[in-house]
Amino acid sequence: MHDLIIIGAGPAGLAAALYATKKRLDYLVISKDLGGKSNYSVNLPEAETYGTVRADELVTIYKSRLQYLRHSYKLTEVVSLERIDGGFAVKLDDDSTEEARAVIVASGTHLQKLEAEGAMKFLSRGLGYSSISYSHLFAGKSVFVAGDSDRVVNSAVELSIQADTVTVALLAGGHFDEKLVDRVRGLERVTLVENATIREFKGDEYAREVVITDGTNETTVSADGFFIEPEPVPNTSFLRESGLLEGVDLLDPSGYVRVDGANMTSVPGLFAAGDVTGNGYEQILVSLGEGAKAVLSAYRFLLGSGIVGR
Amino acid sequence: MHDLIIIGAGPAGLAAALYATKKRLDYLVISKDLGGKSNYSVNLPEAETYGTVRADELVTIYKSRLQYLRHSYKLTEVVSLERIDGGFAVKLDDDSTEEARAVIVASGTHLQKLEAEGAMKFLSRGLGYSSISYSHLFAGKSVFVAGDSDRVVNSAVELSIQADTVTVALLAGGHFDEKLVDRVRGLERVTLVENATIREFKGDEYAREVVITDGTNETTVSADGFFIEPEPVPNTSFLRESGLLEGVDLLDPSGYVRVDGANMTSVPGLFAAGDVTGNGYEQILVSLGEGAKAVLSAYRFLLGSGIVGR
Repeated sequence: MHDLIIIGAGPAGLAAALYATKKRLDYLVISKDLGGKSNYSVNLPEAETYGTVRADELVTIYKSRLQYLRHSYKLTEVVSLERIDGGFAVKLDDDSTEEARAVIVASGTHLQKLEAEGAMKFLSRGLGYSSISYSHLFAGKSVFVAGDSDRVVNSAVELSIQADTVTVALLAGGHFDEKLVDRVRGLERVTLVENATIREFKGDEYAREVVITDGTNETTVSADGFFIEPEPVPNTSFLRESGLLEGVDLLDPSGYVRVDGANMTSVPGLFAAGDVTGNGYEQILVSLGEGAKAVLSAYRFLLGSGIVGR
Repeated sequence: MHDLIIIGAGPAGLAAALYATKKRLDYLVISKDLGGKSNYSVNLPEAETYGTVRADELVTIYKSRLQYLRHSYKLTEVVSLERIDGGFAVKLDDDSTEEARAVIVASGTHLQKLEAEGAMKFLSRGLGYSSISYSHLFAGKSVFVAGDSDRVVNSAVELSIQADTVTVALLAGGHFDEKLVDRVRGLERVTLVENATIREFKGDEYAREVVITDGTNETTVSADGFFIEPEPVPNTSFLRESGLLEGVDLLDPSGYVRVDGANMTSVPGLFAAGDVTGNGYEQILVSLGEGAKAVLSAYRFLLGSGIVGR
């Protein structure tokens, strides 16, 4: 039985693994990739780089450290998490099972893929998923953003502070707070397209144009950057499959893992960190900090149980 | 009136300032130094550097960025913080006053200086303040740690996992949990000195020996590393001076600022991040993450008030 299993290897999981190494814990990282969403940062055609947070470089360093410790991770997916005597059993997609005294859930969120021509081609090249992280790069520039929830309306408000022009497409079938939408309607620099469907992204090396329709008219919008912002979905289905949830307030109604200020869940020995906690920030630096907190809390838990230091 | 005042420029304050720059806020950092406690990391004579978190390099980068923006910080101390119409007034040690719509308290903690001969001379050279951050460097080595609270007892437990021998001095006049002390007494690799007083640190370029007494016998202890761990004191006296506390649950009994998961205090517009929140981790990565959270929460607060984006 391991001391600790870390599920996920985005910034939160990698920070947790780094500290687990320092504390000489017997740990295992289980993740379908290393780096998580931080692998998909968007490059813009003429972006100024001053002011860019170098936290992504820290993630790269942590990633290569983990890769060096080959025995410390498995690239597969988690199917379920069950409590067993003295810890947890984690069932993996390859039908094997791993056991540990403590578990950190750092499995992140995923975004429903957008079915639009050209979307996959231009992803990371002028087209990205999180406009908020890049809004500072759009001073005096034009930006297009589309989404199916209030998330995109909030992005539009923030982008309008920095960008010269913002085109916001509220996608058909989405749910929006009318008050928020009204606020965006009143903003000078913002053009609102309601009941929108994206037909196609066009460009050269980078995305340059998007063709959208509101059901009546088809429009082509040029911009310096494009973002599609579907509501993120927490990667916690493996927790729903497990018996852990009975009588325990582990997940919130949207499926995010509830944690306290020390990144502990309501299940002793189970911790969570990063976007999967629904902190709503989606920032590398925040996730790194939460990963560190979670593993130090897990370490205290293991010390307190007299498990470490045998 | 500024959008934001950040009190303190340790890792939490610096991370907050970086995001404030990105978000183009009109902000001011007020701090007696840049870097905070991260300036006082300890160098050990023969430490392996593998596994060291490079978060301190991130702090160095953030620090130099802030120094480049000369108008954005003032090197002085805060005397008091008062609420005024539409925000806060921060009174400074130079008798000036600065105003802002939102404030982040990232003023950290300080440690009561230890009055022992040689302590100042060897600080950062073989002698440090936080053994926990360095415990992984003591595998197979010897370490000395002294303190006046349970903090040092916990450190001893953790150090005993990695180090070959640990000498723990429970300082005379300190307060300790007897159960915890009993646990340490039972640890093979640990030598306990109760009712201890430190006479002197000795060494060459680095600290090499400490002379201690338990009131009866004087002993000289050699070690590869020395730590003194007085209980940290939150830098919040300026909040006690202010009218902010009336009817508000701002500070906990030890003087730490209470925050929720978004680093908000109970006073609207007032946020806190880093060691001053009493998170108990004292880790650069954790403080960087909290600083980022606090400023993004402050930004949401300012956006919500319609203050930003005029």
